Amino acid sequence: MAGTVTLRLAEAEDLAAAALEASGASAGNARSTARALVAAEADGQAGHGLSRVASYALHARCGKVDGRAAPRVERAGNAALRVDAGRGFAYPAIDAAFAALVPLARETGIAAAALHRSHHFGQAGAHAERLAAEGLVALVLGNTPKAMAFWGGRKPMLGTNPLAFAAPLPGGAPPLVIDLALSVAARGKIVAAQKAGQAIPEGWAVDADGRPTTDPSAALAGTLSPIGGAKGGALALMIEILAAALTGSSWGWEASSFFDDKGGPPEMGQVFIALDPRRLSGGGYESRMEVLMAAIAAEPGVRLPGARRLAARERAANEGLVVPRAVYDEIRGLLAASGS
Amino acid sequence: MAGTVTLRLAEAEDLAAAALEASGASAGNARSTARALVAAEADGQAGHGLSRVASYALHARCGKVDGRAAPRVERAGNAALRVDAGRGFAYPAIDAAFAALVPLARETGIAAAALHRSHHFGQAGAHAERLAAEGLVALVLGNTPKAMAFWGGRKPMLGTNPLAFAAPLPGGAPPLVIDLALSVAARGKIVAAQKAGQAIPEGWAVDADGRPTTDPSAALAGTLSPIGGAKGGALALMIEILAAALTGSSWGWEASSFFDDKGGPPEMGQVFIALDPRRLSGGGYESRMEVLMAAIAAEPGVRLPGARRLAARERAANEGLVVPRAVYDEIRGLLAASGS
Repeated sequence: MAGTVTLRLAEAEDLAAAALEASGASAGNARSTARALVAAEADGQAGHGLSRVASYALHARCGKVDGRAAPRVERAGNAALRVDAGRGFAYPAIDAAFAALVPLARETGIAAAALHRSHHFGQAGAHAERLAAEGLVALVLGNTPKAMAFWGGRKPMLGTNPLAFAAPLPGGAPPLVIDLALSVAARGKIVAAQKAGQAIPEGWAVDADGRPTTDPSAALAGTLSPIGGAKGGALALMIEILAAALTGSSWGWEASSFFDDKGGPPEMGQVFIALDPRRLSGGGYESRMEVLMAAIAAEPGVRLPGARRLAARERAANEGLVVPRAVYDEIRGLLAASGS
Repeated sequence: MAGTVTLRLAEAEDLAAAALEASGASAGNARSTARALVAAEADGQAGHGLSRVASYALHARCGKVDGRAAPRVERAGNAALRVDAGRGFAYPAIDAAFAALVPLARETGIAAAALHRSHHFGQAGAHAERLAAEGLVALVLGNTPKAMAFWGGRKPMLGTNPLAFAAPLPGGAPPLVIDLALSVAARGKIVAAQKAGQAIPEGWAVDADGRPTTDPSAALAGTLSPIGGAKGGALALMIEILAAALTGSSWGWEASSFFDDKGGPPEMGQVFIALDPRRLSGGGYESRMEVLMAAIAAEPGVRLPGARRLAARERAANEGLVVPRAVYDEIRGLLAASGS
């Protein structure tokens, strides 16, 4: 394809890790982060994929991220972990958190890890899926820099606030994964429409005066609309409270941007809740999920959530990642600039 | 007001409890249930209030509820409670669950109670609020009998699936409470429109062929629409899995109706997750919530969620409950029929 480069997964991961190391990240942190970005790219989530290498490297160089941070996991209660990401990348902190969270949840039936001093955590569903692959039902949430208004307000305050859920399926099937943000549309789609000189659909955003708009520039000066009006606005506030207050982290309106070098570390918070279905269901979980899978399979037009993501993943494993040349060149440029 | 009766709160509770006892409930179960129904009525949630006494009494008489059930709370892990509501009313089981859940969550940092063999649990936000009044951040969810389709499908399968969240606020303020169902509109509003011979707004429901409709009869033969399209559909499925599979309970499409005497006990599941913000936040929770309250107070048009509910509650405490005469007569009739 013109304007694209095809990379094997291992090759893409090595390249991203090298670029992050060249920007000052430790080898371990660079590897953990590169692995997550490549996985997102493979899943068709390019917005959380290799396009992030440049902004991550920028943050490591300007001090918004400490690329050499060592996350600290503390027991905050018999079922609670408090995790200090140390102003480093989120992924190594999540690796450290899960090493403790998985055995803990199996023992306690439910356990939580609350991260603070964290950074962009990418594809929320991938974290939930990882817990579900260990036999746990998972809820994962975080806030993001301001993009949506409080319900009834006009100023950007709340993040778009991703929420993910994953549940193990019987018979060795990959976990069911739900992964969504509380905004109708991602900010990136509006930026893309602006670049392309196109209007955005009604319902995506309002302008700075709170009026519906189809002009991407007016939308970017205004706020993104939550799904379902007041209900989605309330859910976004719920996630904001869990991610920021429960962990002791930044509110969306306090967090610095994930994209530029302005301000200090964004100091994001993220929460991971793992439930052991074997304990909580009294052993009935698997057979209940079989009934669900049969009901979904029985109705035309209905699919398990995440089917498209799994198809993209399989294609990437077989055929490699098709990456825009601009993204590839940007990553190569980071290596050249550092003399690697 | 014509067609209404005004009752003091204590009077309404005694009346509802007597009607439930007359239908075979134990005194304790009747009292717990009546208390919850009156609290919902006072909060302006009439759909979960005194109008339910008749259907609850019907269920106690026909065996869809065991009015004399004694809930059993078992430890399923160091932070997990498995609660058998015994096919009784949900409220006494929730009382029993919370007596164990509150001290457990304070110890563990996070704890869950999973109820099975339960029944309609009314105002989800009231349960969350009760946990928040104990200083805990709460997530509460349950499924309900079928009303919504799987995303992409046409048949009613999923419940409207309430989700509630509550968080303690600093300075002795009542907790912040979020309480919503994943359907755009409650089924009761469509039934009311049908009775009144009125059209319903577009977006509330689709007919049996999946086409948008404003005809309430066609809507009731079809399915309720989730908020936010595919995203709300995914959230409804998430709640359904947590409520049904994680607890070992009925799926929405398996559950019998909350309103008639057809079928056996609905065997609903409900999940209560309590998090201790003091443990998880490292002590920063209160000051973070002060910043949120200040930000909300600073912006015109923005209010803390639940303000309307608290205003209704205060009015009911001062002026009593204004109950439709038909509802009052229905409850009195239950007493007369039993000879009480």
